Amino acid sequence: MRERQIQDADSEFSSLSPKVGDNRRGGDLDMTDAGIARTPKSPYYAVIFTSVRTPVGEGYPETAERMLQLAAQQPGYLGVESTREGALGITVSYWQDLPSIKSWKAVAEHTLAQRLGRERWYRAYKTRICRVEDDYDFTRPA
Amino acid sequence: MRERQIQDADSEFSSLSPKVGDNRRGGDLDMTDAGIARTPKSPYYAVIFTSVRTPVGEGYPETAERMLQLAAQQPGYLGVESTREGALGITVSYWQDLPSIKSWKAVAEHTLAQRLGRERWYRAYKTRICRVEDDYDFTRPA
Repeated sequence: MRERQIQDADSEFSSLSPKVGDNRRGGDLDMTDAGIARTPKSPYYAVIFTSVRTPVGEGYPETAERMLQLAAQQPGYLGVESTREGALGITVSYWQDLPSIKSWKAVAEHTLAQRLGRERWYRAYKTRICRVEDDYDFTRPA
Repeated sequence: MRERQIQDADSEFSSLSPKVGDNRRGGDLDMTDAGIARTPKSPYYAVIFTSVRTPVGEGYPETAERMLQLAAQQPGYLGVESTREGALGITVSYWQDLPSIKSWKAVAEHTLAQRLGRERWYRAYKTRICRVEDDYDFTRPA
């Protein structure tokens, strides 16, 4: 109805999962959809990472932030969306194709972070590799 | 490494996105992965619904809870994961196939909730229909 097909990616503003009220990258980020990745037309790929944290916090925020930054520099990266509520978190990263996802998983610094995650920060997680076949969105009229 | 391929679905315990500490359905839900949907072997389908809320709260919690319950009763439903952090929320529901997703979108009570969402509760949202091609998970050894 007021849903519309999505616009092309604006990677400059989708790259670090800005939260509402967080416009530190400046520019014309539309505050009504802050936090929603501006991905290109489908098909593209999504990695859904659902995790349950341990109470261990040491090193986690810095590593999580660093991984967001590092991911955004990888070939084929399209954007990320992330929320955590208590111990449960969902992070969805978007990618151009499967090889991009495979390469990102194998980046040395990321591999180390994954190991630390299993040893310290996560009770459990599940990673799902998905092909985005269709999408649509809605933005409230101003 | 300590990642393992996922087990078959246990729909009785994946159907209502239990949060950590919420074991109201009883039984042997493993608390270490509470909140992670126990989906079957891939392929299956995911609907990623990313939303930014308005400040309007009236009617929202009841409707959101009701939609989780109603979704869990639909044919082809496999589970749901949901988190909200401030205005930004990510809800991922899992389905056996595309017709199940289409049918759920068209359920009358859900259609009404979608309309109310656009009119009252959401500044913006994006819905992505995905085919889950692969998955793997990790659970901390006891």
